Amino acid sequence: MYYFINDYSEGAHPKLLEALVKSNEEHLTGYGSDPYCASAKEKIKAFTKVDSDDIYFISGGTQTNMIVISTMLAPYEAVVAATTGHVNFHEAGAIEHAGRKVLTIPSHDGKIDAGELKDYLATFYADENHEHMAFPGMVYVSHPTEYGTLYSKAELTAISDVCHEYDLPLFLDGARLGYALAAKHDLEIEEIGALTDVFYLGGTKVGALCGEAVVFTHNNAPKHFLTQIKQNGALLAKGRLMGVQFDALFTDDLYLKISQNAIACAMALKKGLIERGYHLYIDSPTNQQFIVVANEELKKMQEYVAYGFWEKYDDTHTVIRLATSWATQMRDVEGLLAMMERH
Amino acid sequence: MYYFINDYSEGAHPKLLEALVKSNEEHLTGYGSDPYCASAKEKIKAFTKVDSDDIYFISGGTQTNMIVISTMLAPYEAVVAATTGHVNFHEAGAIEHAGRKVLTIPSHDGKIDAGELKDYLATFYADENHEHMAFPGMVYVSHPTEYGTLYSKAELTAISDVCHEYDLPLFLDGARLGYALAAKHDLEIEEIGALTDVFYLGGTKVGALCGEAVVFTHNNAPKHFLTQIKQNGALLAKGRLMGVQFDALFTDDLYLKISQNAIACAMALKKGLIERGYHLYIDSPTNQQFIVVANEELKKMQEYVAYGFWEKYDDTHTVIRLATSWATQMRDVEGLLAMMERH
Amino acid sequence: MYYFINDYSEGAHPKLLEALVKSNEEHLTGYGSDPYCASAKEKIKAFTKVDSDDIYFISGGTQTNMIVISTMLAPYEAVVAATTGHVNFHEAGAIEHAGRKVLTIPSHDGKIDAGELKDYLATFYADENHEHMAFPGMVYVSHPTEYGTLYSKAELTAISDVCHEYDLPLFLDGARLGYALAAKHDLEIEEIGALTDVFYLGGTKVGALCGEAVVFTHNNAPKHFLTQIKQNGALLAKGRLMGVQFDALFTDDLYLKISQNAIACAMALKKGLIERGYHLYIDSPTNQQFIVVANEELKKMQEYVAYGFWEKYDDTHTVIRLATSWATQMRDVEGLLAMMERH
Amino acid sequence: MYYFINDYSEGAHPKLLEALVKSNEEHLTGYGSDPYCASAKEKIKAFTKVDSDDIYFISGGTQTNMIVISTMLAPYEAVVAATTGHVNFHEAGAIEHAGRKVLTIPSHDGKIDAGELKDYLATFYADENHEHMAFPGMVYVSHPTEYGTLYSKAELTAISDVCHEYDLPLFLDGARLGYALAAKHDLEIEEIGALTDVFYLGGTKVGALCGEAVVFTHNNAPKHFLTQIKQNGALLAKGRLMGVQFDALFTDDLYLKISQNAIACAMALKKGLIERGYHLYIDSPTNQQFIVVANEELKKMQEYVAYGFWEKYDDTHTVIRLATSWATQMRDVEGLLAMMERH
Repeated sequence: MYYFINDYSEGAHPKLLEALVKSNEEHLTGYGSDPYCASAKEKIKAFTKVDSDDIYFISGGTQTNMIVISTMLAPYEAVVAATTGHVNFHEAGAIEHAGRKVLTIPSHDGKIDAGELKDYLATFYADENHEHMAFPGMVYVSHPTEYGTLYSKAELTAISDVCHEYDLPLFLDGARLGYALAAKHDLEIEEIGALTDVFYLGGTKVGALCGEAVVFTHNNAPKHFLTQIKQNGALLAKGRLMGVQFDALFTDDLYLKISQNAIACAMALKKGLIERGYHLYIDSPTNQQFIVVANEELKKMQEYVAYGFWEKYDDTHTVIRLATSWATQMRDVEGLLAMMERH
Repeated sequence: MYYFINDYSEGAHPKLLEALVKSNEEHLTGYGSDPYCASAKEKIKAFTKVDSDDIYFISGGTQTNMIVISTMLAPYEAVVAATTGHVNFHEAGAIEHAGRKVLTIPSHDGKIDAGELKDYLATFYADENHEHMAFPGMVYVSHPTEYGTLYSKAELTAISDVCHEYDLPLFLDGARLGYALAAKHDLEIEEIGALTDVFYLGGTKVGALCGEAVVFTHNNAPKHFLTQIKQNGALLAKGRLMGVQFDALFTDDLYLKISQNAIACAMALKKGLIERGYHLYIDSPTNQQFIVVANEELKKMQEYVAYGFWEKYDDTHTVIRLATSWATQMRDVEGLLAMMERH
Repeated sequence: MYYFINDYSEGAHPKLLEALVKSNEEHLTGYGSDPYCASAKEKIKAFTKVDSDDIYFISGGTQTNMIVISTMLAPYEAVVAATTGHVNFHEAGAIEHAGRKVLTIPSHDGKIDAGELKDYLATFYADENHEHMAFPGMVYVSHPTEYGTLYSKAELTAISDVCHEYDLPLFLDGARLGYALAAKHDLEIEEIGALTDVFYLGGTKVGALCGEAVVFTHNNAPKHFLTQIKQNGALLAKGRLMGVQFDALFTDDLYLKISQNAIACAMALKKGLIERGYHLYIDSPTNQQFIVVANEELKKMQEYVAYGFWEKYDDTHTVIRLATSWATQMRDVEGLLAMMERH
Repeated sequence: MYYFINDYSEGAHPKLLEALVKSNEEHLTGYGSDPYCASAKEKIKAFTKVDSDDIYFISGGTQTNMIVISTMLAPYEAVVAATTGHVNFHEAGAIEHAGRKVLTIPSHDGKIDAGELKDYLATFYADENHEHMAFPGMVYVSHPTEYGTLYSKAELTAISDVCHEYDLPLFLDGARLGYALAAKHDLEIEEIGALTDVFYLGGTKVGALCGEAVVFTHNNAPKHFLTQIKQNGALLAKGRLMGVQFDALFTDDLYLKISQNAIACAMALKKGLIERGYHLYIDSPTNQQFIVVANEELKKMQEYVAYGFWEKYDDTHTVIRLATSWATQMRDVEGLLAMMERH
């Protein structure tokens, strides 16, 4: 059986486990005040070239999105996202449960368009009744998107410009940010830091057991952010669990190396799929590949590969996702490709 | 100046004020427990032919929508509405502020389509990841819609059937329900009672100073609903304010008569507009008429008529709303039409 | 039957109804933007000597408390109140439903003590773990209190000083503020304006059908406060309902005159009760009088007076409340006293 | 330096780390659907003798309290707890942030009293205005309490009886439950299962890196509980992190053994403290010991022991907490005692 179902079906990269084992007996203070958290923050500052001390660790992506969005927005404000944005679709209404509306604009392979965003905002303020509507209060993008696609530097700059014009913070969900940086890209991490107001470096899907590192790019964390994390139930007593892991992830470029391995495997997979005549649903440069497969073939595939169901394509075809991770090896890709049909 | 800006720019129908004056010195118990509220409920039961004691008065439409939706839904459930539904657009995020998501399906002149609703629900449950999404928990329709249109009996029956199939309560926002019943229609009030789980008879926009009468159609009000109204800050100490008004509204068919006057005026207006060559934006059978007007003409109109801005049509045209109310008189319609251009 | 059950069992003062009738046919803009609201605000500015334009009308007390507290506090902040404060006890958890905690300090006949408040705040900040607790974010007092008592100028000044020291806004619930100003008092309305950050002049319990006038004392209303009222479902389309009433209430000193009548009646009642040997539960200078009555006597009283149950005193006695209102007349007091026993 | 500051300052018990390392490469499904979670649940069922499949893992105590309380209560319901209850004091208002009120009754060394609970409930329902108040909807106890004390079987049975009488679920916060079971006690785990409706076996403070195992004792988890965990941001993608740890904790009695070690150390410490003439603030039978120390002595202690600040005792004395954990060894106790003064 080959496992390409997602990027969170194995445990942690071995170096993270080693670090956990090595530090295990140390007596450390709780709630993120330990030296591993401090060291991880310094390394993340160096990696991102962001000059800000407001870096926090939160255990998962939905939790991070919910806390960042609800604490940065006033109650009467809403977050603007693509219809396909994770915050709109796959978080069980967490944003709304926290009292904030998600306003949607069109998704283009998972991405929003700066022009459409600007039109949306202009239309909102032109509406004489806009005081009876939730105000657009921040903009959410994911990078890579839920469809594996990436923003170019020009695209994110244009979005950032619109945000500045309307005085809206820009939030980048980087649950899989490592894969963006390891893929063919023209948007560098320091540019992300400069163009956004807050973003995160995902750990859960890039080799950690859990944890996302939230970076407020200009010391702009919401007031008493630690208390607000606690109030949302998300403050781990043993903050070391995330501190030690992120410290290891950002030692010796491990975060990038993990991501590079996943991308190399994904590109080999993509190449092989194209060679075998598969229909790519989206042309993704990152670790998630989407193909359209006939339902009959899918039945056979279930015997040799664990894949992710994505969505119904038509009555006889389905879109599936094949994802690579820190644990994927090139021989897994080769093995899988050897099993797959040629069309 | 002619006033067609909306249906809430005058006070109450004189008979309601008379009733308030007449009952003013009476010592009545508070919070809706007075005999006027009781009498109003009985008259509403008779009018709607609904055999249910769960009838409540809440002071405004957004408040009613927010309370009904948030108390009928579990936290993990969302309300399904048209993209143009009042709950999605013009309530400042009140539903989300109360913790519930609004899931949207297409709007057809303000209405949702039973087939699209069914597809939406089928797709939701077919999604293997639907436990990671907010569950559709109730369906919201407005009647008349925000565009003045009406559901036919067949249309609402089809929606109700889908709701039953998926065990979802159906909620009908009747902020302007009187106008639906006074217009040319084939959906009777008793059918609304039979097809929905909860609906309301709007007072604010049909001749009252404030108040909506919420009817849970089969004694199915959420548990301790009075306490939940209080918890939302919406329980008036002097509940008589709504009891006396609704008692008067449902005495001697006043609710219908008010509505019939508004509809007669609106139909005369519509006829005149068509004769004068105006472009109807939507073919509305109720008290709200929408026309597309050139921006230049609009400037002149501002001198003789108060209208409602609706939306930009194109760079040189605007959609405006002309609404009639209990206070509109036929001579106002004639006067306005006399001022308007012929195209 | 004599009616002393509460101060909201009759309708509105006749002058308010007259004003509603007189203005009824006028075409007015909605949502509080009409000239009556504007005029009422100017009169309230003059009455309170507060130099602030941030004056809003909200239909009831619980709604006002909920909206003011939840919009002025950050999510991680809580309101400090007496254990007996209306926000803690009799609002069905509305403050918490809006996501904010109520922190309680002792009640002294309904009042909080500046020294105890200061100790509470000092203890909070001295606690090394206070970042794991809800932060005290504002202070709530009611004046008159739920027990009819009043703060002296010295008392409120001391509380205000503590608030300034800790940078906490001070909120005064004036649901019955008129009665405080008409009673024997040494705290003037302009002092209330100077000592607090926000307070309200209650209408519902001082002669209006509904409505409270919220005064932010230094143009410090929360941002987009109108939208936030809407988001809480509390924005009436026919804002005139409150504008016209408050305009009348603050014309020719009516607000004070209504209150003075109620206080005169209450003081005559109190005097008569003392003469008849009744045990005052609290020495209240305002329109609410609390007496301890033997349960046996209470049974007889039920035949001639409508009173308010307050609380059990002991196994054989009960505390009841006798309240006067705009509608109470001196002959009602005399009539009631004539029926009551001498002890 | 000796470390007695709390029970979460070291990492995980080595056997848990071993299990994480050993299972690390396995491909497992996410969100708690893996075989380790399933195995852990079976072992917990056996350990607790609870016949219920509704067992869930949530990463921390505050998160668990917030989710359990807010999903089991209707919006109009509140949780009844001791004033000193963790949910009332040290969770940054998480319960209220989730919209639910905490109603408090007196704390007796951290415990509530069944008689006082019953009186509270009886008084609530006797209040004619109770529909204007938040309804008591569940009862919260912690065991051990925040002060290290334990309920006897008789005490918890009496509380459970009152809960049954008023149809209120009983929730036991077992963040340190292992220590209760390892201490001198007369309340067995199967009795806890029988007397409560939901409780949890804390992992974070009993040898795990994170995680609490919530047991709904009679298949009574709130509907779609997994979705509700997700909606609160608390569903870990790599659910294995908790599954593997809890599976190890409940293998070969490790949970009890960890706890027994901590209790043995705590009892030796307590004995030594008494011998040295220290004033016990509370007579705690569990892993947390509280002593009153003169502030001058405290300064010296800071050089050789990490302790927990608890609260100010008087102007010259402080209450401190000394806690043992899975990692405490008897020689640490002996070493600490050797440093401590004799009084």
